[in-house]
Amino acid sequence: MERATPPGRREPALRYDSGVTGPPVLGALPPFARVAVLATLGASFLAIVLDFGLHADPTVVFLISAAGILGLAWVVGLATERLGALTGPRMGGILNATFGNVAELIIAFFALQAGLIDVVKASLTGSIIGNLLFVLGVSVLVGGFRNGVQRFSKEVAGSNAALLAVAAIALFVPAVLALTTRDSSPGRLTEESVLVAVLLILGYVLSIVFQFTHPSLTLGGHEPLEGHGGPAWTIRVAVVVLLAAAALLAVLSEVLVGAIVPFIERFGLSTFFVGVVLIPTIGNLAEHLVAVQLAWKNKMEFAMAVCYGSSLQVALFVAPALVLLGLVVNQPMNLVFEPLEVAAVGAAVGISALIALDGESNWLEGALLTIVYVILAVSFFEFA
Amino acid sequence: MERATPPGRREPALRYDSGVTGPPVLGALPPFARVAVLATLGASFLAIVLDFGLHADPTVVFLISAAGILGLAWVVGLATERLGALTGPRMGGILNATFGNVAELIIAFFALQAGLIDVVKASLTGSIIGNLLFVLGVSVLVGGFRNGVQRFSKEVAGSNAALLAVAAIALFVPAVLALTTRDSSPGRLTEESVLVAVLLILGYVLSIVFQFTHPSLTLGGHEPLEGHGGPAWTIRVAVVVLLAAAALLAVLSEVLVGAIVPFIERFGLSTFFVGVVLIPTIGNLAEHLVAVQLAWKNKMEFAMAVCYGSSLQVALFVAPALVLLGLVVNQPMNLVFEPLEVAAVGAAVGISALIALDGESNWLEGALLTIVYVILAVSFFEFA
Amino acid sequence: MERATPPGRREPALRYDSGVTGPPVLGALPPFARVAVLATLGASFLAIVLDFGLHADPTVVFLISAAGILGLAWVVGLATERLGALTGPRMGGILNATFGNVAELIIAFFALQAGLIDVVKASLTGSIIGNLLFVLGVSVLVGGFRNGVQRFSKEVAGSNAALLAVAAIALFVPAVLALTTRDSSPGRLTEESVLVAVLLILGYVLSIVFQFTHPSLTLGGHEPLEGHGGPAWTIRVAVVVLLAAAALLAVLSEVLVGAIVPFIERFGLSTFFVGVVLIPTIGNLAEHLVAVQLAWKNKMEFAMAVCYGSSLQVALFVAPALVLLGLVVNQPMNLVFEPLEVAAVGAAVGISALIALDGESNWLEGALLTIVYVILAVSFFEFA
Repeated sequence: MERATPPGRREPALRYDSGVTGPPVLGALPPFARVAVLATLGASFLAIVLDFGLHADPTVVFLISAAGILGLAWVVGLATERLGALTGPRMGGILNATFGNVAELIIAFFALQAGLIDVVKASLTGSIIGNLLFVLGVSVLVGGFRNGVQRFSKEVAGSNAALLAVAAIALFVPAVLALTTRDSSPGRLTEESVLVAVLLILGYVLSIVFQFTHPSLTLGGHEPLEGHGGPAWTIRVAVVVLLAAAALLAVLSEVLVGAIVPFIERFGLSTFFVGVVLIPTIGNLAEHLVAVQLAWKNKMEFAMAVCYGSSLQVALFVAPALVLLGLVVNQPMNLVFEPLEVAAVGAAVGISALIALDGESNWLEGALLTIVYVILAVSFFEFA
Repeated sequence: MERATPPGRREPALRYDSGVTGPPVLGALPPFARVAVLATLGASFLAIVLDFGLHADPTVVFLISAAGILGLAWVVGLATERLGALTGPRMGGILNATFGNVAELIIAFFALQAGLIDVVKASLTGSIIGNLLFVLGVSVLVGGFRNGVQRFSKEVAGSNAALLAVAAIALFVPAVLALTTRDSSPGRLTEESVLVAVLLILGYVLSIVFQFTHPSLTLGGHEPLEGHGGPAWTIRVAVVVLLAAAALLAVLSEVLVGAIVPFIERFGLSTFFVGVVLIPTIGNLAEHLVAVQLAWKNKMEFAMAVCYGSSLQVALFVAPALVLLGLVVNQPMNLVFEPLEVAAVGAAVGISALIALDGESNWLEGALLTIVYVILAVSFFEFA
Repeated sequence: MERATPPGRREPALRYDSGVTGPPVLGALPPFARVAVLATLGASFLAIVLDFGLHADPTVVFLISAAGILGLAWVVGLATERLGALTGPRMGGILNATFGNVAELIIAFFALQAGLIDVVKASLTGSIIGNLLFVLGVSVLVGGFRNGVQRFSKEVAGSNAALLAVAAIALFVPAVLALTTRDSSPGRLTEESVLVAVLLILGYVLSIVFQFTHPSLTLGGHEPLEGHGGPAWTIRVAVVVLLAAAALLAVLSEVLVGAIVPFIERFGLSTFFVGVVLIPTIGNLAEHLVAVQLAWKNKMEFAMAVCYGSSLQVALFVAPALVLLGLVVNQPMNLVFEPLEVAAVGAAVGISALIALDGESNWLEGALLTIVYVILAVSFFEFA
């Protein structure tokens, strides 16, 4: 990145300096992306106006704010990617680990503040099984369909799977304790959950230190993929975009959360279905598309790393952060998940480890993973 | 198979044309197999006469019809093998996937029609753990005893194990849902089970498509093993044998099922023991012997493929087919297995994946697998 | 070991014959170890005097006898190691398999005789999760911290992990049966446990036969590591040391067990915490240090083998031996563990298998394993 440039040869990195040669934000994007950004902004302002100004029907508010959040999560991803490409693999890894699941964290925070604790917990479960079954499933299916049997490093995939399994088990210990103990006073379970949250955050900090010291081994630190350095923004533009998108995301999340309960009641949905299926999809769809795209381009290792890495962040960062934030906003949230959630995550982690460890994937595996996800989604739909 | 034959050289395939050169069915078999076929026919007719004609003691009827079914399942296997060898690896794979567990399906269907739903569900569990613990265990034990440490492809074995794990998890979701939900009305559970059955059948159809498009990757598609092309029947003979054996199997299954309840009461057995241990053994013993034989000949990869493949068929085809057939014969069967069954299958799938993924097996692993099977069999014996 | 020595060259093995050239026991040890042995003896006699002579405060007795047992377990290890080095890999494997967990067995036996059945069962759980999470975690952490990413044979580690998983599942079947059956009379569960114990002992005998016939494949049979042949004792000295240390261990175990109940009451500890965390640590700490030391020296494969091997011995030998000894001393102990114990061991076995199967470890994995152990230890602390 910082090689000396021979005189007389134009340094191609200058091409990125779009702050000079064009409009700072949209100009750096390909035409399709410009439309998407404008649509995102439109949906966002429409949702805000409908909610605060017109007190519109909650279903409409829910759907339009969901569309806005989808787009904003994607913009956050673009800015993070760009910052990572400009600051090198180490900082890039840390940025990715911090902002990778920021949309999810923001939505869940507002839901927590609104007292929708069951929805928040279900969204953590849903994010993990969504990544490990649905996104991984569709990626393997699409990748295998186009590229035949795909091979990848057993060591890298296996190591990611092992880290994820350890983190998931740590996250679910309070739930298992609550299920099996005879004396489960709520205070005790919250106490245990806070302690687990602190230990998980410690694990998260260690994982960032590890990424920083072993950049070649981890997701965030690989050489930027072709076409995956993000748009040609300067650092200042990227930072401004990131902050603006995150702020707008916060406003929209509050709007979305305010519409959840009427939306659930209107369609007779179960809380678990909304938490497990809808919320994580809204927060993560942009990331999901990246994984599928990578699989399509036969970069299965990266696609798997996105799925595992995102799940790992939920277990080590999003979930414990919400427990601690719950104390701050006086909505104490424990980590006592429903048995069906524990079973679903256990199954998802186990299956994805098996898929990783044989070093090969094919479209049939992807199709079956997707089928398992659909079966689980239906089960949460019926779960009460 | 269809190479041009140089003139003056006798095409060896003509040797198969036993319809011309000898008795069409028995003449193509080695002497031992001829005796076995005749014994099978003898047992079959004896069982029918004892049951329909003489109303003999149910225990005698149970044992003799079981012997007949054992033999008929083996004859079905021979005919399937022969048809596969004659029609090439693609059709062979499909035939194998369709007729591989036909004996089991027929017995279970008659048990279902007779309302023995617990026995049917237990037989599905028993078939999976029997394949993954007992048959795999004995194969690894016998193979390791004769051949020392056996090595095999981690990729192929691991891929089979991963497919099986995904299918098994999908199959057991309704049971976990029923265990963990607070509102488990029977109607809802049957509804969920039917939906899961339809999705499993979809997975089964996809697995057949996969076999057809990737014949080199799957069990049914490998080059016919030496001595594993089946007897030298013509296509017409093989089809007739297949249909006749299946028809006789259906008659005997009805006889067997009629004798199950008196047999259970006579010996004070638990329903689960009969379902988990006895029924799958009767339906699968012929296939079991093939796996053990392959391990003995140091073809561990094929032996493992038989065990995994047979379990996969139970999860993706036999179980959902029975759910759908249950609707037809008005004996609605859900997929809500007993917790002990869920735990046993979970353990069996997990262990067999571990055995597959290290790419090596030795007789001690086989002995311990067999011990786990015996412990589980005893548990189902005591289970009530 | 028994090569002919060329005349005129002094056979280095003579150096071992410390019975001639110095004091037979302590003279063969490096200075630090001499101090440790003397401290162990001092603690042992002090504990005995305080308990039998002075009827001292149970907390003091508990702590001093624990210190004595820690040291004696280490001395037993030294003697076993030395005997193994003198008698060759085959006998060494058997000795190791017999005396490796002898301290644990002796403590548990006295606790069983005193009727502390819950403590005994919890100590079995604690020994397995301590080995697989805490010791393995610290080893991987320390080893990775010093040596970077550590690679090891997937086959050896995977095979050990598979054996362990099979043994652990067999051990926990009675607990799962008890959890899931509707008719769980205590007599029936003890009956089932005795049968499982007999089958596990059979597995243990088979594993010793396997070690004897395949010495190159197993832990006990590898070439003695540099500095791991034990002190330079003669066979006679080593046998005398082994027997004396074991006898003293028995006396101290009785002292320790007598102080457990007052100790638990004094500090308000849960039985499970003492059983899962304290007792296994006292019995196994010496062995733990060996594993960590091996990881530090970048011999990760051996460190993992110590962890898996020790857990395997608990499942196949210590646990069933205690069930059978319980019948002898009329304290019938079944294998019905608490659900939290089943979940904890299941998680520990699963995680350690994943760590083994990717063939690589790094300090982050070690840190997360240790965090999971701490979370589980806290859970057992709160468990009641």
